[in-house]
Amino acid sequence: MNTFGRLFRVSVWGESHGPAIGALIDGCPAGLPLSLSDFEEDLRRRRPGEAGTTARRENDALTIDSGLFEGRTTGAPMLIRIANSDVRSGDYSAIARVPRPGHADLPAFHRFGGCEDFRGGGHFSGRLTAALTAAGTVARKVLLTLPVPVRCAARLVSAGGESDPARFEARIQRAADEGNPVGGVLEGTISGLEAGLGEPFFDALDGLLAHALFSIPGVKGVEFGLGFDFARLSGREVKDELVSADGTLRHNFSGGIDGGLSSGNDVIFRAAVKPAVSFGTLKSVDLTTGKPAEITPGGRHDACFARRLPPVIEAVSAMVVLDQLRLAGRVGPVLRPQTDRPGLP
Amino acid sequence: MNTFGRLFRVSVWGESHGPAIGALIDGCPAGLPLSLSDFEEDLRRRRPGEAGTTARRENDALTIDSGLFEGRTTGAPMLIRIANSDVRSGDYSAIARVPRPGHADLPAFHRFGGCEDFRGGGHFSGRLTAALTAAGTVARKVLLTLPVPVRCAARLVSAGGESDPARFEARIQRAADEGNPVGGVLEGTISGLEAGLGEPFFDALDGLLAHALFSIPGVKGVEFGLGFDFARLSGREVKDELVSADGTLRHNFSGGIDGGLSSGNDVIFRAAVKPAVSFGTLKSVDLTTGKPAEITPGGRHDACFARRLPPVIEAVSAMVVLDQLRLAGRVGPVLRPQTDRPGLP
Amino acid sequence: MNTFGRLFRVSVWGESHGPAIGALIDGCPAGLPLSLSDFEEDLRRRRPGEAGTTARRENDALTIDSGLFEGRTTGAPMLIRIANSDVRSGDYSAIARVPRPGHADLPAFHRFGGCEDFRGGGHFSGRLTAALTAAGTVARKVLLTLPVPVRCAARLVSAGGESDPARFEARIQRAADEGNPVGGVLEGTISGLEAGLGEPFFDALDGLLAHALFSIPGVKGVEFGLGFDFARLSGREVKDELVSADGTLRHNFSGGIDGGLSSGNDVIFRAAVKPAVSFGTLKSVDLTTGKPAEITPGGRHDACFARRLPPVIEAVSAMVVLDQLRLAGRVGPVLRPQTDRPGLP
Amino acid sequence: MNTFGRLFRVSVWGESHGPAIGALIDGCPAGLPLSLSDFEEDLRRRRPGEAGTTARRENDALTIDSGLFEGRTTGAPMLIRIANSDVRSGDYSAIARVPRPGHADLPAFHRFGGCEDFRGGGHFSGRLTAALTAAGTVARKVLLTLPVPVRCAARLVSAGGESDPARFEARIQRAADEGNPVGGVLEGTISGLEAGLGEPFFDALDGLLAHALFSIPGVKGVEFGLGFDFARLSGREVKDELVSADGTLRHNFSGGIDGGLSSGNDVIFRAAVKPAVSFGTLKSVDLTTGKPAEITPGGRHDACFARRLPPVIEAVSAMVVLDQLRLAGRVGPVLRPQTDRPGLP
Repeated sequence: MNTFGRLFRVSVWGESHGPAIGALIDGCPAGLPLSLSDFEEDLRRRRPGEAGTTARRENDALTIDSGLFEGRTTGAPMLIRIANSDVRSGDYSAIARVPRPGHADLPAFHRFGGCEDFRGGGHFSGRLTAALTAAGTVARKVLLTLPVPVRCAARLVSAGGESDPARFEARIQRAADEGNPVGGVLEGTISGLEAGLGEPFFDALDGLLAHALFSIPGVKGVEFGLGFDFARLSGREVKDELVSADGTLRHNFSGGIDGGLSSGNDVIFRAAVKPAVSFGTLKSVDLTTGKPAEITPGGRHDACFARRLPPVIEAVSAMVVLDQLRLAGRVGPVLRPQTDRPGLP
Repeated sequence: MNTFGRLFRVSVWGESHGPAIGALIDGCPAGLPLSLSDFEEDLRRRRPGEAGTTARRENDALTIDSGLFEGRTTGAPMLIRIANSDVRSGDYSAIARVPRPGHADLPAFHRFGGCEDFRGGGHFSGRLTAALTAAGTVARKVLLTLPVPVRCAARLVSAGGESDPARFEARIQRAADEGNPVGGVLEGTISGLEAGLGEPFFDALDGLLAHALFSIPGVKGVEFGLGFDFARLSGREVKDELVSADGTLRHNFSGGIDGGLSSGNDVIFRAAVKPAVSFGTLKSVDLTTGKPAEITPGGRHDACFARRLPPVIEAVSAMVVLDQLRLAGRVGPVLRPQTDRPGLP
Repeated sequence: MNTFGRLFRVSVWGESHGPAIGALIDGCPAGLPLSLSDFEEDLRRRRPGEAGTTARRENDALTIDSGLFEGRTTGAPMLIRIANSDVRSGDYSAIARVPRPGHADLPAFHRFGGCEDFRGGGHFSGRLTAALTAAGTVARKVLLTLPVPVRCAARLVSAGGESDPARFEARIQRAADEGNPVGGVLEGTISGLEAGLGEPFFDALDGLLAHALFSIPGVKGVEFGLGFDFARLSGREVKDELVSADGTLRHNFSGGIDGGLSSGNDVIFRAAVKPAVSFGTLKSVDLTTGKPAEITPGGRHDACFARRLPPVIEAVSAMVVLDQLRLAGRVGPVLRPQTDRPGLP
Repeated sequence: MNTFGRLFRVSVWGESHGPAIGALIDGCPAGLPLSLSDFEEDLRRRRPGEAGTTARRENDALTIDSGLFEGRTTGAPMLIRIANSDVRSGDYSAIARVPRPGHADLPAFHRFGGCEDFRGGGHFSGRLTAALTAAGTVARKVLLTLPVPVRCAARLVSAGGESDPARFEARIQRAADEGNPVGGVLEGTISGLEAGLGEPFFDALDGLLAHALFSIPGVKGVEFGLGFDFARLSGREVKDELVSADGTLRHNFSGGIDGGLSSGNDVIFRAAVKPAVSFGTLKSVDLTTGKPAEITPGGRHDACFARRLPPVIEAVSAMVVLDQLRLAGRVGPVLRPQTDRPGLP
């Protein structure tokens, strides 16, 4: 449902055009120093504004209503709230009758009996990734405090079929100029993980990461290590070699995960993101008449939505990894005791 | 952990070389006619034996210890047990000291402190997919009883880079002849799903399917609809068109899932499977000495492991879909009341 | 952790002296008419103010940030936020050094490494039952829309050992006058439940109700039907008689639950609530010195805390029952489709 | 459903008159020495046979099909199977038409649409407590290996209203002689717990214990510390005193749990168990005709069923506590590494 994780649990809530969106974090270790300014950089990276990104202005006014005391996490649930501003509901009113193909509009209409908040995608909006991003900021801060810090990084590695950075920037600019958005591929890297993380059988580390990644609107494919290239190669070509007892491999073909557990090497994955499709005129049906109809979404969109996703990818990676570290007993309920209060054993 | 699903829950247990493996199903609707012979066909499809598959003979002697009464499911937990036979433990003894690269051997050693059953991959063995397959047989039978039957099908669509069936058969035969296995791609199709299935935000239907698919040993990539091709295309190229209020799309580029919910079209996905790597001589380390060492696994392997996976892919697809149908209230706790016992309202 | 329920899920968050407390509801059926005024009556019943209740003035300014659209629930997560007002932090500062016996102060200190918000009990405060109450208002509204409405009612049946209403009112008044609070017993009744609700083996309806009831601060005992009296009676004395095929029993000794499932009779239970103990001078230890110390909590307390709990008892009862009705398929994801939007099948 | 616990998870399966019952344990730490003989004593204590207990002979032939390797737990799921023997199905055939009042017969009939295995209570039978007991044996063994061993003990403290051991033994004998069973009260004690165990808000330690205890067939009431006596006492009478910073209290009125967390004192609770009622002639209805009918269950019953429950109470106590210790990071996934296999960091 709207919660992910076993011990480090993140619930997202809110709609694109409602009063606010946010995340409720349960199981955050106590004792993490945290302030509102910690969230700024990640939210800025996700925020539209660069060339070719949507014209919607999001202030991302973030507040924390619980779980924080004297500048440190308490271990109690942390409610993060991000107020929605610059909401122009008028843009989206036609969607009530004519759903946009390629969006959740019609599936949500069927699922929620027409009661869903359809404005701007409602609860299915990409806007909710801001809440994910904020939860990820917390998770990543925890991971960086570990004796061996765990780092989650993500970057755009191709857009519109171009893999060279200079060329894909030009490709995105052209997409913006032509009003014809492009998709892209992001690569994520998780470093600092020891061998043995993940849970057999179903909570394989790759399974959990993929689960979380596909929750991000627009992600249509996920692969680890050689990924789909594995399928066309032979065993001899992809035999790896163990070079030390800690799990280090010569090639890391598997992308840091073997048998569903971390192998002690960098976890490396790629996610394919589709281009925005709600621009120009869309062919659809009118729900009231059942007849063909067209819709011209007045909403804002990105020339390359994928470009805004690195902090979101990093966020879900960190959520998954931190949860597994808690399950494995590597991160406990207290990160650092409050030394101002003696008396602990 | 070792359980998947919310209302239709499957737990797998067992080790490759232990007395038995199996699945515990909780939440199977009551009233499904079921007999041991129902399991035969799927287990046979997964079983080694065709050209190029492993020489291990598995009888798959399946018994059901609970949840079945007078030929129908009772709604109580169903314990499925498959005895292990043809277990040659001697083949695997060297693994205790020298783990195989590209397997769970070393990660499991770290995770379980050296206490894991390392014989033949133990709990991480592909052998456990027989238990998954059996659980899938039950789930698929339930899905076929629905007013609009839901069908889960999977097939190998490429092997060793060859996509033409005649050519990939030849490619697999060559892999068998040369003792150099190949990977492959499987395509899964789920038909009969109405629009609106799946749970926002994290239990997106694609997220759940990917989670379950990555639990299958050897799967390294999953994509839906155009998948990774989306990343190189432009919005104009992948704009779809809604042709009726039930959700039918002209192209179904998204592979039956939009915004994490079923769109009312066939769900179509592909899974990339890597080739077997534990053949010939493997370079590794000796855990006792920390020095480089080689291992020559005497175990059996498949020329194209992917070829045996269609029933497993179908199984996890059916598990996910049935669980979501239960969550959406489309499948209740009783499939068909026992008419021999009047008195129900 | 801080979430209860499988399909109707309630998460509580907040601290007694933080900016706000609240509840996040996931899985509320779509289409329930709901307005802010619906919450007033239950919050008023829980609010201090009557003779002998704490002097803290709580405005319970409640807002809903998501999950509500055009006056009806959407099926998306509903964030309920209740601002804390009348917060006098100064009252509680001594607790940081000297924990109050009979409270969570010291256990929480150990659990959260001294990082917990200790003001007024923090996340462990009875204040959080306001959030529970609000979640219960939603659950109870859903239950009342069913074809056979399900009603959850609770009332104080004894206080300070007095079971006659006139006498226990006098007893509470005396407790207030003497500044020596009393405990009490509440009785809960759930009517309108058909037979068969609850989940074997562990999610017995009594088990779930007890679990939720013990989450309410101050509850120290729970019994169903004859409860502890069963233990001193003989089989002949407690043999019941089935009088119709729908499950109706002559005596309902079991309190509406047999074998963990609802029996088709009223569910009847009692909860024992302890008296407030943080008044006057408390003997404790100083955490800084480890030496004996006394604390005189300046905070406010109730002469009979149990008296404020009926809406809280009703809330958790409704949460449990609604969740089970969803699990049993009796309540689906949509309560009533939005008829202003035709096009649903 | 049929699974309890977050990290130490126990699933029970089986029916009274099916081939077998059992428990599937997921999350048992690796490295626990375990053999089949470890289960004997607990199963013997639960087994009928003493004066006044049911005449059913249960051999409790227990086998372990997974999760055990070279005499130690592996960390993988452990399947415990107990074959049913001495099954006389003929005894129970009338129940198909005429359900026994005070049992799950009729509720289960409604819940499972008449498809349930009704023989001897089926999945709702007290027989399943043998599986619980076996799971408890494992949990208790883990708890005893801790640096400060945690001990779970339970004993009968009253029967038929008699609290003196000599007198309640006589009372039970009389119940056996007269064929009129009696109820009883069991007291459980958990010692060795440090302060701070349990999870706010809903996974209060008392809530979890109560949840698990009510899963045991026949339990109708649960209380902690002074329990229901709290309700008639005043604050002055139940004020406790903290005597050291580790949480030690002078009186432990609360029974070792304050604010839902362990307080560092012995956890003490009582469970009320009802007498067996399925003896002699029971007044019921015939489901086929809807008319009144009588049933004379030929099955076996106990003069004081409560007497057999100490190992079951201990089992669920241990399950709850071990799960919480895992959540709190006090027990990790490996209890003791396998020292025969060097190479771990």
